[in-house]
Amino acid sequence: MVVVLKNEATTQQINNLISWFEEQKVAVHISKGEYQTLLGLVGNTTNIDTDLIEGLEIVECVKRISDPFKNANRKFHPDDTVVDCSGVKIGGGEFAIIAGPCSVESEAQLLEIATKVNASGATLLRGGAFKPRTSPYDFQGLKAEGLELLLEAKEKTGMPIVTEIMNANHLPLFENVDVIQVGARNMQNFELLKELGKTDKPILLKRGLANTLKELLMSAEYIMAGGNEKIILCERGIRTFETYTRNTLDLSAVPMLKELTHLPIVIDPSHACGVAKLVKPMAMAAAAAGADGLMIEVHNDPPRALCDGPQSLTPEQFDDVAKRVFAIREAVKSLD
Amino acid sequence: MVVVLKNEATTQQINNLISWFEEQKVAVHISKGEYQTLLGLVGNTTNIDTDLIEGLEIVECVKRISDPFKNANRKFHPDDTVVDCSGVKIGGGEFAIIAGPCSVESEAQLLEIATKVNASGATLLRGGAFKPRTSPYDFQGLKAEGLELLLEAKEKTGMPIVTEIMNANHLPLFENVDVIQVGARNMQNFELLKELGKTDKPILLKRGLANTLKELLMSAEYIMAGGNEKIILCERGIRTFETYTRNTLDLSAVPMLKELTHLPIVIDPSHACGVAKLVKPMAMAAAAAGADGLMIEVHNDPPRALCDGPQSLTPEQFDDVAKRVFAIREAVKSLD
Amino acid sequence: MVVVLKNEATTQQINNLISWFEEQKVAVHISKGEYQTLLGLVGNTTNIDTDLIEGLEIVECVKRISDPFKNANRKFHPDDTVVDCSGVKIGGGEFAIIAGPCSVESEAQLLEIATKVNASGATLLRGGAFKPRTSPYDFQGLKAEGLELLLEAKEKTGMPIVTEIMNANHLPLFENVDVIQVGARNMQNFELLKELGKTDKPILLKRGLANTLKELLMSAEYIMAGGNEKIILCERGIRTFETYTRNTLDLSAVPMLKELTHLPIVIDPSHACGVAKLVKPMAMAAAAAGADGLMIEVHNDPPRALCDGPQSLTPEQFDDVAKRVFAIREAVKSLD
Amino acid sequence: MVVVLKNEATTQQINNLISWFEEQKVAVHISKGEYQTLLGLVGNTTNIDTDLIEGLEIVECVKRISDPFKNANRKFHPDDTVVDCSGVKIGGGEFAIIAGPCSVESEAQLLEIATKVNASGATLLRGGAFKPRTSPYDFQGLKAEGLELLLEAKEKTGMPIVTEIMNANHLPLFENVDVIQVGARNMQNFELLKELGKTDKPILLKRGLANTLKELLMSAEYIMAGGNEKIILCERGIRTFETYTRNTLDLSAVPMLKELTHLPIVIDPSHACGVAKLVKPMAMAAAAAGADGLMIEVHNDPPRALCDGPQSLTPEQFDDVAKRVFAIREAVKSLD
Repeated sequence: MVVVLKNEATTQQINNLISWFEEQKVAVHISKGEYQTLLGLVGNTTNIDTDLIEGLEIVECVKRISDPFKNANRKFHPDDTVVDCSGVKIGGGEFAIIAGPCSVESEAQLLEIATKVNASGATLLRGGAFKPRTSPYDFQGLKAEGLELLLEAKEKTGMPIVTEIMNANHLPLFENVDVIQVGARNMQNFELLKELGKTDKPILLKRGLANTLKELLMSAEYIMAGGNEKIILCERGIRTFETYTRNTLDLSAVPMLKELTHLPIVIDPSHACGVAKLVKPMAMAAAAAGADGLMIEVHNDPPRALCDGPQSLTPEQFDDVAKRVFAIREAVKSLD
Repeated sequence: MVVVLKNEATTQQINNLISWFEEQKVAVHISKGEYQTLLGLVGNTTNIDTDLIEGLEIVECVKRISDPFKNANRKFHPDDTVVDCSGVKIGGGEFAIIAGPCSVESEAQLLEIATKVNASGATLLRGGAFKPRTSPYDFQGLKAEGLELLLEAKEKTGMPIVTEIMNANHLPLFENVDVIQVGARNMQNFELLKELGKTDKPILLKRGLANTLKELLMSAEYIMAGGNEKIILCERGIRTFETYTRNTLDLSAVPMLKELTHLPIVIDPSHACGVAKLVKPMAMAAAAAGADGLMIEVHNDPPRALCDGPQSLTPEQFDDVAKRVFAIREAVKSLD
Repeated sequence: MVVVLKNEATTQQINNLISWFEEQKVAVHISKGEYQTLLGLVGNTTNIDTDLIEGLEIVECVKRISDPFKNANRKFHPDDTVVDCSGVKIGGGEFAIIAGPCSVESEAQLLEIATKVNASGATLLRGGAFKPRTSPYDFQGLKAEGLELLLEAKEKTGMPIVTEIMNANHLPLFENVDVIQVGARNMQNFELLKELGKTDKPILLKRGLANTLKELLMSAEYIMAGGNEKIILCERGIRTFETYTRNTLDLSAVPMLKELTHLPIVIDPSHACGVAKLVKPMAMAAAAAGADGLMIEVHNDPPRALCDGPQSLTPEQFDDVAKRVFAIREAVKSLD
Repeated sequence: MVVVLKNEATTQQINNLISWFEEQKVAVHISKGEYQTLLGLVGNTTNIDTDLIEGLEIVECVKRISDPFKNANRKFHPDDTVVDCSGVKIGGGEFAIIAGPCSVESEAQLLEIATKVNASGATLLRGGAFKPRTSPYDFQGLKAEGLELLLEAKEKTGMPIVTEIMNANHLPLFENVDVIQVGARNMQNFELLKELGKTDKPILLKRGLANTLKELLMSAEYIMAGGNEKIILCERGIRTFETYTRNTLDLSAVPMLKELTHLPIVIDPSHACGVAKLVKPMAMAAAAAGADGLMIEVHNDPPRALCDGPQSLTPEQFDDVAKRVFAIREAVKSLD
């Protein structure tokens, strides 16, 4: 951490500040410049509150040099983490496609979709039972009943299931869920993250709509600090000024996160784009960029099929996407 | 709601879609243009899922015309709501300043600050007991013990208290809290909002860092849909590309929200700016723009005073700010 | 265009407005709803100023339905445009890599880089002579002398050249330049765009840092309205809150623009990411997403090589990237 | 400037880098930490290219400590600059309101508006002759003819005029213009800024839609580096995710810029909000926040008055706004 002092700081004030840092058990290197004096803090600075220091009258600014995340940091854990989702592995070269409907609607719906996406290469089944909706008047999901349907589909198809949690009080209902998803709007619901840190379930943690990668990693750190290291990061589009697409898929998050962390990274092109036609090219691009997995919405809902074209992919479209994704992975691998 | 159809939509497809809308009990007006056909939906369209319709193959886009929020909407409730916070009123011409430390630290600290800010004109005492922190390694607040200290300060000074909740399971601890705050990161924690809708406490709802005013109103709607209409909206800065200030205070939210809703609006210049020097001018500007109240961080913490200038205002600085704010309110009133 | 009227609009006011629209030669369809009255404007509405209408007291809002760009619109020009850059084609299945140094520094530098990138598969040579810099104190490029060096390199290697223009007054200097680049900060320099519309040179138009795809297309429209239809669009990263990467590469711009326009789209991963390590995965992803070309910074500058690793790719790294990009294109093609 | 090195940097590489810095005439202080080595550069670092250094393989990151702007910097020029606009002063306690129509339309229009706003307290007349428009099909202004009309209005009313330039080639036409405006989209048109630096006219420089205050100051620096120090900064709203307002007025720019620079700051609430009703409260707020002036759109155009309510203020509404603004300034002054 580097603390830049203002020119008008008196020696007395500087000495007071240095003493205070030393009490916090960090060593201080002073670098007096013609225009500016810098204090370089060396040692364990993770517990020093940057905002507090920046608020001091004699401080111009504070630059944190080392990353504030530890457990998630590749520097201290160079090997890729491989998350085992009830037998399906993600990370460290293991690639998986998670597919299924946005909302669980019925047993027949789930089974049909599950069987088809599995045949096309998906190995994890997703489906929403508890749905976060911006409006209190929108459909909130089948809730506990939806979870039941997912568990039945799991039993019948053998596919491990991924579904979203919105409230730590619901954890007992998730006992047989294989991967628990934390949605974008709950990425900084720290109370929920702490509770998930006490479980031993794989957690699929989605990046918030306007959150940085550092904030995503700090949220992973909340879960890991509780002892649960089975985290799959998920980029699902961020808010930008663009309006043709619902969000902007930040694909560079894949190689950037691979530098920063050992945790696996999965891409959700369906939510990012909000347009079925973009799912195929972006899924292919994600594979080329080195993602550890994909999460894709697939639907066969007749009311939606009304006009022959729901936003989610049909199982047939998904099959085409999956083929191309696997082909690109082969092409990439053959060059390594 | 206006649905714009693609040129290639067949009559059969269009008729199917119209029948489906009519089943949802909305009337459909067709407007055939040279280039485009529009469907105007009239009636109660709040239950129609825009995303679902937009995803249909024959649909170019969907424009929602009427606001999706009802209880919070000024159109259906033209008079200002006045929220009574244990005797201190906010809204409808009633103005209040909420002041206090960011974190509750000790009884002595709270009492000293409370007494001083009260003497300067603040009528509600704020203080954080449960603190949302981006890092799991940062100080998380005194929690239940902090709440105890706040309740003691309330008893001794008579000031109603405002403090943040992070988990609906903590509600029993908030029984004697006067105003419950929902922080920016929990603005879309819908499970928490639903629980607060079942209480009869005033709720101070902070706008999320990258949320629109419509989303803020939809979150208020979540609480109101549960039956609790005592909501105070709070603008505390939004995320922009600017880096000199921590966030960007969106002061135009004040007059804009006054158009859209009958709920009172309070401005928090301390969190928005992150720089003590900006609190004074922005508090004055908020008063001039017509805010119903202010929320200001005031601190007397000796360790922070180390270099004579914490980020929060000192009680003396707060006194100066309050004087100016009241003077501007007088100047504005004298012209009406 | 749909105009939504306020409830309080009187019949007299509405009739006035309708007459005014009819004077502008657009037909008006009225749709009276329970809550709202809509006017659907049909005909050529491109000349109607949305802002003006939206400012009228009786107007709630205006929704433009048809795209405001015409020449660039795929609806009116379904076939892909292929831009011929002095023999090198881009668009309609023709793919090209533009490579070269950020700034032109010397004849030797340019020749060495040009020869090497050409051998690796690049077919257009880029190099900056006039450099837009945020600070007036930063190096502004070799200017006219840099252009001379580029033209010499073109003569010796046979590679057509791409270089940025910053001032329409410099156009005479660009007489032998093959492709003129408009930088992100000049995307809305409308005076420059108009002048380029009068030339018959291919224009590589970069998206502005905070501009939408619609704005990019409107800027293309400025050039096309002048008669020059040889436009290559370029996505080079947009400004977001992310700080690990310099900008955020919006790869979904590729398939989205392909829907909206017939113009070719090229991706510049070097500027978007600002980190050499990310160029390879993002170039591969761009190829998988269907981009018509890539623009990549390659450098061999000894002073930069000081520490064995400039930000730009070395010719050797570029060779590796190009191989993978071509392999991915093959894999994608083999599935079509 | 602080350069943070990677752990894997070898002594040889570090020594090479230090030698290179010393050749650039900056002193280097080394600070070896347990985890990280820092180089503190002291001296004139404005000419060192941060991006170049950050791209080096052994460099983790570079933090520029001192501001990159000099002429605009309050540190080196503590007193407020007062810009004299043909007799009307702005800055250093001198406050002025610039008012007038968005576009110049006719002599009668201009004269009527000018006379009225002048009577209400405006001392500078604004009007657009050259209009930057996103679409090539929108009205581009009366151009040279509009300038003529402005000059006539100036002669008849005695009010100095402010109008926008879009092309340095038009400078001869601006010979008798009192204040030249640079629009938001041209804030980083560096070629235009350089030409304006050679004039001795006051320049009203608008902040770009997605630009930071530092970038605004760097653009001011471009003009000042050429010798023209008569710059008035103008905040006119920035792009955010909010959609109810056209842009988000960043009022905290006023006190923040006052810390950073000695140049005067003017607020344009009309463009920022895009809604006439918000102009009044935001103009009042700007006065309370300490702005040195306001720029307000006033219109009397009959075609727009069609429905009794254009977006711009009417002269009568402007009179009310001006009264309140002056009253707030009085209230603020009386407390100092």
